[in-house]
Amino acid sequence: MTTTIENSPLFRVANPRSIAFFGASKNHSAMGSMLMSSTMEAGFEGPIYPVHPRDEEILGLQGYRSVDDLPEIPDLAVIVLPQRIVAETLEACGKKGIRHVIIVSGGFREVGGDGIAAEEQVAGIAKRYGMTVVGPNCLGVANPYTKICTTPAPVEGDPGFIGLASQSGSFIVQMYNYLARNHIGFSTAFSVGNQMDIDLVDCMEYLAACPHTKVIALYVEGITRGQAFIETARRIVPHKPIVALYVGGSETGKRAAFSHTGTMSGPDHVYDAVFRQSGVIRARSITEMFDACWLLGSMPRPGGNRVAILSHSGGPGATAADICGREGLELPSFAEETLEKLAPYIPNTGNANNPVDLTFTRDIRDFFLKIPQILLDDAKIDILLIYNFMPVTMMKRRMRAIGIAEEDIDKTLDEMVRATGEIARELRKNYDKPVVAFSFRSLEEPINKVFIENDVPMFPNPERVARALKSFVDYYRNRERFPSL
Amino acid sequence: MTTTIENSPLFRVANPRSIAFFGASKNHSAMGSMLMSSTMEAGFEGPIYPVHPRDEEILGLQGYRSVDDLPEIPDLAVIVLPQRIVAETLEACGKKGIRHVIIVSGGFREVGGDGIAAEEQVAGIAKRYGMTVVGPNCLGVANPYTKICTTPAPVEGDPGFIGLASQSGSFIVQMYNYLARNHIGFSTAFSVGNQMDIDLVDCMEYLAACPHTKVIALYVEGITRGQAFIETARRIVPHKPIVALYVGGSETGKRAAFSHTGTMSGPDHVYDAVFRQSGVIRARSITEMFDACWLLGSMPRPGGNRVAILSHSGGPGATAADICGREGLELPSFAEETLEKLAPYIPNTGNANNPVDLTFTRDIRDFFLKIPQILLDDAKIDILLIYNFMPVTMMKRRMRAIGIAEEDIDKTLDEMVRATGEIARELRKNYDKPVVAFSFRSLEEPINKVFIENDVPMFPNPERVARALKSFVDYYRNRERFPSL
Repeated sequence: MTTTIENSPLFRVANPRSIAFFGASKNHSAMGSMLMSSTMEAGFEGPIYPVHPRDEEILGLQGYRSVDDLPEIPDLAVIVLPQRIVAETLEACGKKGIRHVIIVSGGFREVGGDGIAAEEQVAGIAKRYGMTVVGPNCLGVANPYTKICTTPAPVEGDPGFIGLASQSGSFIVQMYNYLARNHIGFSTAFSVGNQMDIDLVDCMEYLAACPHTKVIALYVEGITRGQAFIETARRIVPHKPIVALYVGGSETGKRAAFSHTGTMSGPDHVYDAVFRQSGVIRARSITEMFDACWLLGSMPRPGGNRVAILSHSGGPGATAADICGREGLELPSFAEETLEKLAPYIPNTGNANNPVDLTFTRDIRDFFLKIPQILLDDAKIDILLIYNFMPVTMMKRRMRAIGIAEEDIDKTLDEMVRATGEIARELRKNYDKPVVAFSFRSLEEPINKVFIENDVPMFPNPERVARALKSFVDYYRNRERFPSL
Repeated sequence: MTTTIENSPLFRVANPRSIAFFGASKNHSAMGSMLMSSTMEAGFEGPIYPVHPRDEEILGLQGYRSVDDLPEIPDLAVIVLPQRIVAETLEACGKKGIRHVIIVSGGFREVGGDGIAAEEQVAGIAKRYGMTVVGPNCLGVANPYTKICTTPAPVEGDPGFIGLASQSGSFIVQMYNYLARNHIGFSTAFSVGNQMDIDLVDCMEYLAACPHTKVIALYVEGITRGQAFIETARRIVPHKPIVALYVGGSETGKRAAFSHTGTMSGPDHVYDAVFRQSGVIRARSITEMFDACWLLGSMPRPGGNRVAILSHSGGPGATAADICGREGLELPSFAEETLEKLAPYIPNTGNANNPVDLTFTRDIRDFFLKIPQILLDDAKIDILLIYNFMPVTMMKRRMRAIGIAEEDIDKTLDEMVRATGEIARELRKNYDKPVVAFSFRSLEEPINKVFIENDVPMFPNPERVARALKSFVDYYRNRERFPSL
């Protein structure tokens, strides 16, 4: 187990001071050029050395004819060359003294036949020189903190707290926008490809030691070192949650995984057992994995699984209650004192039981601040779930009705949004209990976005939030089985 | 069973030529004023008569002191008054000759005690005058074709093909934006509230006869006329799909439903049996219900459950394959001929098996048009599922790389988006097979939006599309059990 991040074989992969690129060229649409572009666009501050037999200038940088011509021994080499010249290039890197390599090139074990022998040859060279190799058949690493990104698309959004390790490289790329949109962001992402040397377990160890990482997400097509996986996870879980998506469990998933990274998958129940023994939370989809990570990385530890639901409307309140129940969450009745405190805020068409259903809101501060405070003050409530429904169309109409001039409506709307954001911040600051929300309207509407910006996770439907809450609560329950070492 | 829409008791509720509003007033934020505003904003073309004891002008319309003063017998009355004066108002409406009434007011059966007696009194009046009553404790109706909308928020988006009947009124309101965003839209929506007179079965009959409705969506907290529900559904299902969400099945859902509309819910398995006997597709969430409706209302009948997946990336392809398998969809191997035709388009890093994984795309026409055509031509394939990944950041970089001037980039991007839209349209026009897609990027990005605009449903993750496909395929399978009468 890595005790400090510097001891991890991945440290100089994720935090290189200098990088050589093999496969970047004058041809901007070559894969190697794209990966180098992404690192340049990420703002990498150290020297980048494109190595190319002919091109003297590559994307504005000086090209080097061979690895021998490099002015220093770079911390990291990224190889994006045709399979047939990977071995000789790796050999040259080894001779030069390079000790960390990402092999992006495919055509190895995942294609079978000669590919298997080719991978063994490459593994032999790496071993001879004591090199750490990520891949082959991978996309390498993205670390927004050290501004490296060896994926074809550049990173998006701000650095965040989710550490990723994935057997799919493109899967990491697909997530950039998804995470950025939700203002989540990641800390470091590894694409391990065929796992010839570095595997998911090594990545877990690195991410466990990474100070920016609050929660670890794994995309798994097949685990090769089962025992090491379990032991490592059990040591990490008391300190940091791990959420895994395993896709090899169905027959169709198994076939797709095999032709993707040459991984032999096992049946679902075996992986269920592995994850259970390790305290790893299993997600059923990528969306579910990141939803769970969002709560685990940003919310305080809940006292238990007791949820209060606050809604303006019966239907969404009832469906949220139903789905929370199905996910094993409790919706307790409120304490007498809570009911008394709620009474003045509930119109006679409304309902003060759990879910609290206002039917309509006279004052947004009642709905977003005062009632939430009453609910969070109830010792029987561990988590608050708010259903947000504020159509811009209705808000504007109400403003017109109370006589706000047409030219002031947008400004008034902005002020309301800002005020709602301040309320959300206040709730999060003053209570050590998780507060989450959902809405059926676009999450890109300002009144929804402002919650996310103020650290109240907002989901597009009740089933996603209920499922995420279940994973969130399960993690803390599991953790009790693994006493911290 | 209604044979023509004009025979339905709901015909003049959903298609009134004139409407009286009780409860609209000078006070713009009164519930009655809001509902009347929504109808005005919807563009209702017939006369609207606000009835109010004092206010002479209401939202710019002439106020009438009593129902007796109205210049004609309106087709529909909407009552949004305090519970204690609902009965006398209904009586006055009956005397006037009004035969269709929506009672929005709450405080009846759903509150228990005196509310039950009050509802019985109202039911007696309605019966005496032979009035059709929707509600009480409901939001009435929204019909974008006849431009009526008695919900607090105005409708959004274009008219569409989903017919809704719901025991939650606000649930209908919540869906406006959700449907509009996906360019789906609804035909007519009914909120039935306490179902004193008109219930879900009546709405199903109306929607079955409605020419704009291609698929019926039901939000159910409890069915009161079980046998009628089953018989009616069985007659409708051979012609029109019905998708239902039932939320009373869990203990928490049951409690929430009861305090919402006073409905006694039954156990899940009873409802499962009812839906199964009726050929109704059961959805597990609102999202799932509308996703299924989207496919059922816009896609041609599939030959079977055999899906081809097309992806640029192994990970999303593998997860989609896994989830499709779990939902009982098949991913067949392709015909020899198909593999031969695919070969020239698949780079050597890619994979021509199902899922087809290009790893990267040289020409977007290959990915979006030529390969889809080859897959749709395969007789073993019933449904095509495309994973769309086109980050704007990468597209722009590639344009710069091929020398497109900075000032032309946005225009070129627009052209690419338009071209992609034309391709989508071509695929839909030339093949009588369903084509669906998913993306992890924002569905509001132009490259995703253009699919939806060209009738290729686009979902934000593979699990939603797989689940919707399952419901879609299940409907056609179920239908075979119910021979058309």
